[in-house]
Amino acid sequence: MKQAFVRARRPEHKQQRREAILAAARDLAAESGMRTVSLGSVATAVGLAKSNVVRYFGTREEIYLELAAEGWTAWGAEVAERLRDASGQDETVAALTETLAGRPLFCDLLSHTATTLEHNISVPAARAFKRVVLGVLGDLAGDVAHAHGGLTEREGFEVAAAATALAGTFYPIANPSPALAQLYAEDPDLAAACPEFLPTLKRALSALAAGLPTLR
Amino acid sequence: MKQAFVRARRPEHKQQRREAILAAARDLAAESGMRTVSLGSVATAVGLAKSNVVRYFGTREEIYLELAAEGWTAWGAEVAERLRDASGQDETVAALTETLAGRPLFCDLLSHTATTLEHNISVPAARAFKRVVLGVLGDLAGDVAHAHGGLTEREGFEVAAAATALAGTFYPIANPSPALAQLYAEDPDLAAACPEFLPTLKRALSALAAGLPTLR
Repeated sequence: MKQAFVRARRPEHKQQRREAILAAARDLAAESGMRTVSLGSVATAVGLAKSNVVRYFGTREEIYLELAAEGWTAWGAEVAERLRDASGQDETVAALTETLAGRPLFCDLLSHTATTLEHNISVPAARAFKRVVLGVLGDLAGDVAHAHGGLTEREGFEVAAAATALAGTFYPIANPSPALAQLYAEDPDLAAACPEFLPTLKRALSALAAGLPTLR
Repeated sequence: MKQAFVRARRPEHKQQRREAILAAARDLAAESGMRTVSLGSVATAVGLAKSNVVRYFGTREEIYLELAAEGWTAWGAEVAERLRDASGQDETVAALTETLAGRPLFCDLLSHTATTLEHNISVPAARAFKRVVLGVLGDLAGDVAHAHGGLTEREGFEVAAAATALAGTFYPIANPSPALAQLYAEDPDLAAACPEFLPTLKRALSALAAGLPTLR
């Protein structure tokens, strides 16, 4: 296998290397969160020099932005599938949120998108990513509106977007840092105030979906 | 002034140094966002060695967590003041959100709290911060419920917490990175999809406040 990495002149070899880099970055982030993974550690894991990795992805942020785009596409497909059999607010919210709870790496990447992943990237990388996100949300808008039964398509778009925004907000709160984990172990009253991911996400998204039509 | 920084053995001098460090960190973050500010640049700005700064704040994150706590206290006080004259959902939401729009540094810090500021800190620093946040939200809960007129105190707490969580979510989206700013200049259709801070925050919080009572 290593042999294949020495030269990558043919397109299929280049694609292979890109995939290997993405796989290594995915595994490292799954272990300890994207926050702690450096470009150097991705290079080491995949057995390439850092200078070689940046030929495929200009920066660490571009690698994770690509994984975030993959996450958006896969999540959108699963939600669309689940919405086909969904009816009413509870099932619509369940389809949007349980699929996020099942994707911790995607939620981790959502929590870092605007503050980190959209920085230190090229304009073409930013464009490709934004088009994926808007494409997924645009495709889901009508499905969400139809399954919910009480929303316009614009409101369906907003609810789908809010699901991912809120997931990015609640994920790092519900998965506290080592310092906070120790604090919660010492102070049960503070631990009780730390929201659980899925119930909090469902409650906030349900309230939002129920409230949007009152603003028309 | 520099002279005063050579020795700081008396408590008022120590307090002076802490304040000088916080002021420098505040100014640097206000210029370009907290994201790009290192402990070294804070030390340089305040005219101290890095080894000296860490005697006052163990890490860069602890400095900004302290500024975030100051932000919470100041925001909470202003909201409480505005809620005294507020009545109904629109005025309640205006009090909670316009006070956030007027505090860009606080919103920047909110956007980094769970993903960055709560990492790489001591347990006592984490405890002090969490107690400030829960104290402010606890104090606002009843005021929000009373001004809104249709919420329980628990729901008032949730709406106040959601205001800050959503501000942390929307702020970095509404203030795009250089790469995204260039992309938006080139692609007006993508720029149109980028939400404005205050209208988006108001709409989401209004929907949430209107929807929460339907979940009882």
